[in-house]
Amino acid sequence: MALRGPLFRLLRAQLNHTCQQSRAQSVAVLGAPFSRGQKRRGVEHGPKFIRDAGLIERLSGLDCTVHDFGDLSFHRLEKDDPYMDVKFPRTVGAANKMLSGAVSRAVGAGHTLVMLGGDHSLAIGSVSGHAEQCPDLCLIWVDAHADVNTPETSPSGNLHGQPVAFMLKELQDRMPDIPGFSWTKPVLSSRDLVYIGLRDVDPGEHHILKNLGIQYFTMRDIDRLGIQRVMEVTFDHLLARKQRPIHLSFDIDAFDPSLAPATGTPVNGGLTYREGIYITEEIHNTGLLSAMDLVEVNPVLGANREAVEATASLAVDVIASSLGQTREGAHVSIDEIPPVKEDTEQLRL
Amino acid sequence: MALRGPLFRLLRAQLNHTCQQSRAQSVAVLGAPFSRGQKRRGVEHGPKFIRDAGLIERLSGLDCTVHDFGDLSFHRLEKDDPYMDVKFPRTVGAANKMLSGAVSRAVGAGHTLVMLGGDHSLAIGSVSGHAEQCPDLCLIWVDAHADVNTPETSPSGNLHGQPVAFMLKELQDRMPDIPGFSWTKPVLSSRDLVYIGLRDVDPGEHHILKNLGIQYFTMRDIDRLGIQRVMEVTFDHLLARKQRPIHLSFDIDAFDPSLAPATGTPVNGGLTYREGIYITEEIHNTGLLSAMDLVEVNPVLGANREAVEATASLAVDVIASSLGQTREGAHVSIDEIPPVKEDTEQLRL
Amino acid sequence: MALRGPLFRLLRAQLNHTCQQSRAQSVAVLGAPFSRGQKRRGVEHGPKFIRDAGLIERLSGLDCTVHDFGDLSFHRLEKDDPYMDVKFPRTVGAANKMLSGAVSRAVGAGHTLVMLGGDHSLAIGSVSGHAEQCPDLCLIWVDAHADVNTPETSPSGNLHGQPVAFMLKELQDRMPDIPGFSWTKPVLSSRDLVYIGLRDVDPGEHHILKNLGIQYFTMRDIDRLGIQRVMEVTFDHLLARKQRPIHLSFDIDAFDPSLAPATGTPVNGGLTYREGIYITEEIHNTGLLSAMDLVEVNPVLGANREAVEATASLAVDVIASSLGQTREGAHVSIDEIPPVKEDTEQLRL
Repeated sequence: MALRGPLFRLLRAQLNHTCQQSRAQSVAVLGAPFSRGQKRRGVEHGPKFIRDAGLIERLSGLDCTVHDFGDLSFHRLEKDDPYMDVKFPRTVGAANKMLSGAVSRAVGAGHTLVMLGGDHSLAIGSVSGHAEQCPDLCLIWVDAHADVNTPETSPSGNLHGQPVAFMLKELQDRMPDIPGFSWTKPVLSSRDLVYIGLRDVDPGEHHILKNLGIQYFTMRDIDRLGIQRVMEVTFDHLLARKQRPIHLSFDIDAFDPSLAPATGTPVNGGLTYREGIYITEEIHNTGLLSAMDLVEVNPVLGANREAVEATASLAVDVIASSLGQTREGAHVSIDEIPPVKEDTEQLRL
Repeated sequence: MALRGPLFRLLRAQLNHTCQQSRAQSVAVLGAPFSRGQKRRGVEHGPKFIRDAGLIERLSGLDCTVHDFGDLSFHRLEKDDPYMDVKFPRTVGAANKMLSGAVSRAVGAGHTLVMLGGDHSLAIGSVSGHAEQCPDLCLIWVDAHADVNTPETSPSGNLHGQPVAFMLKELQDRMPDIPGFSWTKPVLSSRDLVYIGLRDVDPGEHHILKNLGIQYFTMRDIDRLGIQRVMEVTFDHLLARKQRPIHLSFDIDAFDPSLAPATGTPVNGGLTYREGIYITEEIHNTGLLSAMDLVEVNPVLGANREAVEATASLAVDVIASSLGQTREGAHVSIDEIPPVKEDTEQLRL
Repeated sequence: MALRGPLFRLLRAQLNHTCQQSRAQSVAVLGAPFSRGQKRRGVEHGPKFIRDAGLIERLSGLDCTVHDFGDLSFHRLEKDDPYMDVKFPRTVGAANKMLSGAVSRAVGAGHTLVMLGGDHSLAIGSVSGHAEQCPDLCLIWVDAHADVNTPETSPSGNLHGQPVAFMLKELQDRMPDIPGFSWTKPVLSSRDLVYIGLRDVDPGEHHILKNLGIQYFTMRDIDRLGIQRVMEVTFDHLLARKQRPIHLSFDIDAFDPSLAPATGTPVNGGLTYREGIYITEEIHNTGLLSAMDLVEVNPVLGANREAVEATASLAVDVIASSLGQTREGAHVSIDEIPPVKEDTEQLRL
């Protein structure tokens, strides 16, 4: 991809891509303190802890302007009985509807959006709002889990394990009319999506992945191919035919639990720090990132303060790297090596 | 190896391989609580801790039936003086004779055998019993150490550093008649064996490996080739000429000490979790695994409860992965994505 | 590089290379307890902790003789005001002048030199002294940082971030006359240097690296190419035209902070243990290592005793591996597998 980055930028400039064009320099940060897509409380504090780990300062050091839009305020519903096995359907539906509108406005205003979760059910609203502005977007889903259960296949009934099922056109005849979600419509075809990092896939999910021919890379695939090749195939799959906006949905549990312990459903054998950063560096290098989610940081679940801070700090690294921070030091450039100053002559011994 | 797995299965079906055929669906678990092959007490509790980490439940979730044959009861010998420098020769010899018989019966009855150690001297009995039923077996030895010292080259005299020397035909003129081992006979040629994970090899062992032309992969080789290529070469070496049963002898110290701290002879720079699981996934994919050892989990040596539980849990992952658990979620299959149920219609708002 | 090692040795023998020839068997260890190249006290205790971790014993087990020359005694200067932003210029200059002389004498006497830091500003003296004896040396700099700031580009003014700028001929018109450094002269061209492990590069440094066409490998490059290919390109770059002495300058912060926590400027996403050892094994295999630095072990900065001991022990592994310790067990060789001893016949039962 070393050569592709500049090539992509050139192509992009020529295509004069409306949805991406003006947004490269302006970043909107939006917190979504929400946890009803799953059982464990605490993940609603994710936005605060990620900000406290220095997110805004870090982004300000990059070549962009940062607008922090604060946190959304979600309403508590008095009565929200399960529908089939689906837990809190109206609460999750309403939160995502609000989020969808906010994301749509931010993207429409020309910002590259950063959504801080909260649990991964929030991707329903985030991707939906993004698609409202950029209907031709593609989705890169970095996660230990596929989150593509339907209400019928879900072992748990938690909606954070089902968001992708709401998005896929091919699954709509398998989706019941869940209360709270009448506003949604599927925005993706199965070929518009790539998974990276899977290692805990439910039987129904495996069937869906295989049956719909979705492109996915499990940790085993990363072991076989290496992360560089995985990213090459990802971009070939999503971008070869046309340049289009990327939505990155990054679940912190994609990382190994030794790196991201403060999360609700950790699974051994995850991404290394370097693999995670490589993924985001490559996505940045396409010049096409238009919106991203960073979800499932749960500060209540870390064994101690170090564990929580490490997880939140990792989230900051992922976001900063997605937005242009590089390990090579190229994110801020200078024009020349300063010459020796004349007036220091007099200070010489 | 992606294409080889199915090919192997096809070939196997055609060859109608007696020793493997009927066993794919039935797993026998056999504990061997034994520690006299080395100095440090505690490794005899390995079988209990591996079971307590959920082994049987995990295997029951796979596509196989599980028979837990419990633990062998080894006899304590009153008097067992060293022979040359060899420690506890009669005790180790008698335990392995008993184990050999039990393994032979289990394999003969059609089970895929899982032996839980105990120390690695137990491989003498395990491989011997397996070979009684499957004389054409091959051996994959995953370990930080080569365990191929003869009594003459062994720096310590501990028999857990010598089991492979008992198995190799080419070494028999270098093996003295150790009391307790008159029942053994060498069952392998040096070409029937591959080592993976070596990083602490004694000078005599290095000489043996080189002199006998044994195929081995040190951690340096894994660094050079990658684990995928290592497994390809392993299978080419052992299985290219003919399909035959695999004996996997897995020492938990093959893993890095950060992953498997509760073991007697840890060495830095070991396998990652993902490399270990990749090895066992690949072995499972051959369809030829006939028996395996999981040894050297020593719950007394962990620094704390977390360290012990992590090590035992890792042992469970290795065994489950060897027997069909996959990161892709393919180990349990379903036939179709469930349609929306008719009777849920009435529940819609 | 497997085939290159022996080829290199052959070429070297033919070329009768003066600077390397006689030194393969004799190692000189020299401590440099110095910390004024940076702000944090404690790094002056590095030599003691590396020795206490068993350095001399470990080297004595290899195929070489070891001479421990103890620690240098550096003078404290009463008055040493900053020059421009440069901190402690006269103190750092004087220490490096002393070190340069000691290194020159040790190398001149036929030893392979091991310098134990101390902070990385000491490389100014170490490389300078080495170059006095071996003017055609090349430099491999393993580090999270490029350490190539000039006094004008340095964000901190600490000299441990500037040593390479003193060495490079191409930068001399950008270097002011810093008090304490009138004895230095640049000894390297930009093509004589390779960096490995970079991941925290200042803007001025990035400009210098790019502008001078220096060969460097960031962690991203290692992610892309793999450590094997990185070493191949390193040797092609430095040694393809002629065999020449190697100076290895190894900052312990090249490793990931999880492995080397006791250091002053840790950066996430560093070398794995195996990558670090692979680098040093490969350098040893060239047969051309002539001097090395091991710097920035700061025992005051570890969170606890385990963290400090792990860091110091890692330093010992790096040095031992650079000097011939192998994971394959080949560093000590024996001539034959001992036969069964005749006189043990009588001991048989």
